[in-house]
Amino acid sequence: MSLPVLVINPNSNDEVTASIDRALDPLRSNDAPPIRCITLKDGPFGIESQRDADVAAVCVGAAVEEQVDNAAAIVIACYSDPGLGAAREITSKPVFGIAETGLATAIMLGGRVGVVSILKKSVDRHWSYARALGLDRRIVADLPVNLSVAELADEASVASKMLDVGRRLRDDHNANVIVLGCAGMARYRERMEAELEISVIDPTQAAVAAALSALRLEYRGERRTNGS
Amino acid sequence: MSLPVLVINPNSNDEVTASIDRALDPLRSNDAPPIRCITLKDGPFGIESQRDADVAAVCVGAAVEEQVDNAAAIVIACYSDPGLGAAREITSKPVFGIAETGLATAIMLGGRVGVVSILKKSVDRHWSYARALGLDRRIVADLPVNLSVAELADEASVASKMLDVGRRLRDDHNANVIVLGCAGMARYRERMEAELEISVIDPTQAAVAAALSALRLEYRGERRTNGS
Amino acid sequence: MSLPVLVINPNSNDEVTASIDRALDPLRSNDAPPIRCITLKDGPFGIESQRDADVAAVCVGAAVEEQVDNAAAIVIACYSDPGLGAAREITSKPVFGIAETGLATAIMLGGRVGVVSILKKSVDRHWSYARALGLDRRIVADLPVNLSVAELADEASVASKMLDVGRRLRDDHNANVIVLGCAGMARYRERMEAELEISVIDPTQAAVAAALSALRLEYRGERRTNGS
Amino acid sequence: MSLPVLVINPNSNDEVTASIDRALDPLRSNDAPPIRCITLKDGPFGIESQRDADVAAVCVGAAVEEQVDNAAAIVIACYSDPGLGAAREITSKPVFGIAETGLATAIMLGGRVGVVSILKKSVDRHWSYARALGLDRRIVADLPVNLSVAELADEASVASKMLDVGRRLRDDHNANVIVLGCAGMARYRERMEAELEISVIDPTQAAVAAALSALRLEYRGERRTNGS
Amino acid sequence: MSLPVLVINPNSNDEVTASIDRALDPLRSNDAPPIRCITLKDGPFGIESQRDADVAAVCVGAAVEEQVDNAAAIVIACYSDPGLGAAREITSKPVFGIAETGLATAIMLGGRVGVVSILKKSVDRHWSYARALGLDRRIVADLPVNLSVAELADEASVASKMLDVGRRLRDDHNANVIVLGCAGMARYRERMEAELEISVIDPTQAAVAAALSALRLEYRGERRTNGS
Amino acid sequence: MSLPVLVINPNSNDEVTASIDRALDPLRSNDAPPIRCITLKDGPFGIESQRDADVAAVCVGAAVEEQVDNAAAIVIACYSDPGLGAAREITSKPVFGIAETGLATAIMLGGRVGVVSILKKSVDRHWSYARALGLDRRIVADLPVNLSVAELADEASVASKMLDVGRRLRDDHNANVIVLGCAGMARYRERMEAELEISVIDPTQAAVAAALSALRLEYRGERRTNGS
Repeated sequence: MSLPVLVINPNSNDEVTASIDRALDPLRSNDAPPIRCITLKDGPFGIESQRDADVAAVCVGAAVEEQVDNAAAIVIACYSDPGLGAAREITSKPVFGIAETGLATAIMLGGRVGVVSILKKSVDRHWSYARALGLDRRIVADLPVNLSVAELADEASVASKMLDVGRRLRDDHNANVIVLGCAGMARYRERMEAELEISVIDPTQAAVAAALSALRLEYRGERRTNGS
Repeated sequence: MSLPVLVINPNSNDEVTASIDRALDPLRSNDAPPIRCITLKDGPFGIESQRDADVAAVCVGAAVEEQVDNAAAIVIACYSDPGLGAAREITSKPVFGIAETGLATAIMLGGRVGVVSILKKSVDRHWSYARALGLDRRIVADLPVNLSVAELADEASVASKMLDVGRRLRDDHNANVIVLGCAGMARYRERMEAELEISVIDPTQAAVAAALSALRLEYRGERRTNGS
Repeated sequence: MSLPVLVINPNSNDEVTASIDRALDPLRSNDAPPIRCITLKDGPFGIESQRDADVAAVCVGAAVEEQVDNAAAIVIACYSDPGLGAAREITSKPVFGIAETGLATAIMLGGRVGVVSILKKSVDRHWSYARALGLDRRIVADLPVNLSVAELADEASVASKMLDVGRRLRDDHNANVIVLGCAGMARYRERMEAELEISVIDPTQAAVAAALSALRLEYRGERRTNGS
Repeated sequence: MSLPVLVINPNSNDEVTASIDRALDPLRSNDAPPIRCITLKDGPFGIESQRDADVAAVCVGAAVEEQVDNAAAIVIACYSDPGLGAAREITSKPVFGIAETGLATAIMLGGRVGVVSILKKSVDRHWSYARALGLDRRIVADLPVNLSVAELADEASVASKMLDVGRRLRDDHNANVIVLGCAGMARYRERMEAELEISVIDPTQAAVAAALSALRLEYRGERRTNGS
Repeated sequence: MSLPVLVINPNSNDEVTASIDRALDPLRSNDAPPIRCITLKDGPFGIESQRDADVAAVCVGAAVEEQVDNAAAIVIACYSDPGLGAAREITSKPVFGIAETGLATAIMLGGRVGVVSILKKSVDRHWSYARALGLDRRIVADLPVNLSVAELADEASVASKMLDVGRRLRDDHNANVIVLGCAGMARYRERMEAELEISVIDPTQAAVAAALSALRLEYRGERRTNGS
Repeated sequence: MSLPVLVINPNSNDEVTASIDRALDPLRSNDAPPIRCITLKDGPFGIESQRDADVAAVCVGAAVEEQVDNAAAIVIACYSDPGLGAAREITSKPVFGIAETGLATAIMLGGRVGVVSILKKSVDRHWSYARALGLDRRIVADLPVNLSVAELADEASVASKMLDVGRRLRDDHNANVIVLGCAGMARYRERMEAELEISVIDPTQAAVAAALSALRLEYRGERRTNGS
């Protein structure tokens, strides 16, 4: 049997992993590699700061080293892409970060991209990373819902806040594709898309889809110059 | 049975269509929509100039209008993305241009992107389009093989020229992912990848893979503001 | 007698051609080549979408090929510059697109450029094109009046809407030069300029003026790499 | 009789003024305002440094103040555009700098712009100014001939050096329009254009042509916010 | 005794010089070169326009030439950096402009930079200069208080206007470091910082601090290519 | 006695710390806070990859938390700026990264910045970070010496390799200020500067100088939005 796409949730919150796992069901097929989601026991419970992301990066590096022989491709399921660079140094199998892949997927759809962030302080990190990726000119706005990752679990009230941000992205900033700026927002995709009538991208779904395509088409991982 | 992904070869060269079609075999699956490739009888025989691309755009627009009810998603298989904007006005089904999608796919793989062009005069159009897409900062070089589309059929001699360009992209410009800047280059992907040991992206494969993912994940097409 | 500057109105609306023609009177002189305006019978009636622009591009290409021997220079009088690239492949005589030339003229005047668009959906195409031209950083805003080309004929009500957009460009976005983003807006230039007290550029006038200068100074057309 | 276009040569070298004056003959017409060239007695003999340009700027400011009532429009004939901002504060008549206008004219012609500079140290100032203008992305290279303004008078040897730079701009950097980066290079335009077979823009000619067009079309000068 | 850091106030307003001088007290030390502030008698009384800045540039050039032997490093204390380029041609001792250094200091502090300008018309010059410096992407907003340099002397009412602008920079534009866009604003730094609770940079202080560091670390001035 | 500037060497190589410490002597003064350098026992021995940098970031975060009460300001002495974002979340005291500060210092000196990197693979990380900082347009080239951090200890042969890179930065890329892209290169600064005759910036020196200035001028650390 073929090796799975390994989806690493870099935080230690099993509920988030379970919700990610459910959201990936549409991508499962008898005719494709399996998809396996894991929680990093040593990761921070939520990734709400640069420091959390730094800790997560190290945990991801360790997990990739440990698990890479049992995976055909790897997805890092946190919108800060922690450990992405390290993972690509460790293995030449394809590794996908959900921020990088989510934004690229939105661009493929022709979009003026709007991003939904959890916290105001995430917004700065997002812009800095988008500049590093050279993709910032395609993002029309990045707006926070101002919820902690914990609060995201309270679906009823969260949904209306996210819809509100989605409407502002669409109507005030002319976004025509929305990227959810957190792996924990997966469960809200369907609702938002139904209400807003524009594509809403769960970046974990996008990255797993990209990983499955990469396996079919036998893309290599990025070639990191090594030795020198 | 589900509607196919429709791949439109905007030129009237059936051989190119056949070669595109063969290259898509790895993406075919019992568990996915079929992939159907068509040639545009009225399209130019090859698309080597802006004028060719303009003519192709109109043919693509007409073909999309005529065929859209029989397709679940559409891929425009010419690296100028002719008719992409028009197609997105005609339908809200997802439409992919191979240049836009090929570049975004290379970005997903973390790449410093090198592009192989057919002709020197294609290079300017490519840069202008990459600027329009806001993706130019990720492209490290775009180098021509200086062959006409017709010459591309002569595999033996073409392969060595393409490898030569590929090596310059990798070694002189530090590219770590290569995008083939023409749908007619599909047959050279495997050979180049084996020799260069970096990912070589056939943008038609990339766009069809993206279309299949979009269908699984039920992305909408870009929402073009209409009426006003 | 010297060959004329040929102004091609790519739509099939003779009234628009007539209004363009009148607006060019200040540029007519016994000491300069004549200015001749033509309507493209096969063009779309108005150019309000990318698809319209694609069709217009092909019509312009055909017209340029047919008429180029009877013209000293060519102006394409539609703010999408349809067929501009093709025209420059067909002839080495100077060819001007009104968007490219209108923006460059505004820059010459030292301006923070504001653009008046017809429709909201034109705005996206404008920004994409301005990025392709590398001129987007000089444009402070591009705002739509949200009128169809047809409605533009109703002068009384249109004028007040255009003035309103002009005031917002000047006062809210600090524009000090305005470019009319449609050849059909020529008749409103004078009124806007009188009210707003800043330069308002009718891009067709600007392009014809540039063509006359190019002929006096014997500029060549852009040298499109040919053969390869 | 109508007021002239006043061309200010900001250096005190009468021979340069005379050569500029001759180069403007093709723009003279009975049907257009006269063109009058003046030398600034107090200006530096040549403008080869930022300090020279600073001194020139003050001289230009004084000259504009003194002469503006006798001019319909003003052209500042030095590729550093000294005093351009000040002139636009002094008068609302149109004022053109030859660098700003030369680059914008090259852009109108669709060009990938190459610039010929006098000295290596001019190159930095040019790039800095092009960034300030937001036009740097259209300039493919700026190469020096490394001659002092004085040496420019020795036509025989200068011509071959300039042609050499022109060929490198065209062949190595793919420029298809060349802008002469000094008002004193006017006399070489014809020769270069004949040899290189691409447009070579003398920016003083371009700016005077723009001034004549601006007068015909009654453009205002840039509206500098005043009072506050 | 060691040569001083020479701070040139390019305007002729002795009160401004005195206020600059006082603000530099925290940088004075027995263990560092002295700091000496001078007023340019021939400079404009205030620098409120490009023309003022042009005149100031020439005065600064002359002062640098005259004084450079008596200085270890030079600071030009006007936010237009008049004469900065010329000064670096005259001497290879380090020369600092307060705009360039103020912005770079804000960047060192990790900031999203907000700039307080005196007048609305200063804002355009600031953006143009920031583009020339290649630093514009770090500036989130540049807002004017709309006071003349003279009015800046009336502390009571000025302070509240500056605080108001500071609050808008911090709250509406998310600035986390503020740069005072005029040497004459030095006296308001402390008050603003206390109220706003974010760093407020007096660029003259920043530039003198940079000059003192440059002397300790024996940095050279920028090497301006000379001769050619 | 006043709290020191704490310089954190994020690797565990005491010799590098000792060499950093020596290079800071010119900044020590009776009239300024002391400078204290520490080695991170748990850090990687050298920081040659993204993974090393990730590990270092976590170690720096922990060290800052532990030591911040005993420091007035903090400098992170590794050219990847590991842990910089986290440190600014932990404390509102000023924290400086040597890459960010080294580049900003070079910009203050008016420079076209050249960077000397240790390894080819460092170059990509540097460019990505420079884009994130919005400072990439000021960097003219980033060239590797291709030495491991260990090899850097062998002074005799290293010096000639670094000089070679320095000459290429200055002569081929027109750099006029060089930034040493590694804290371990400090000992080569003097030699390079003497040979190249342009400023060579040891970014650790630059960052400590900036920290001392920040303390004198009482700058706050960046205000990281907290809570939300």
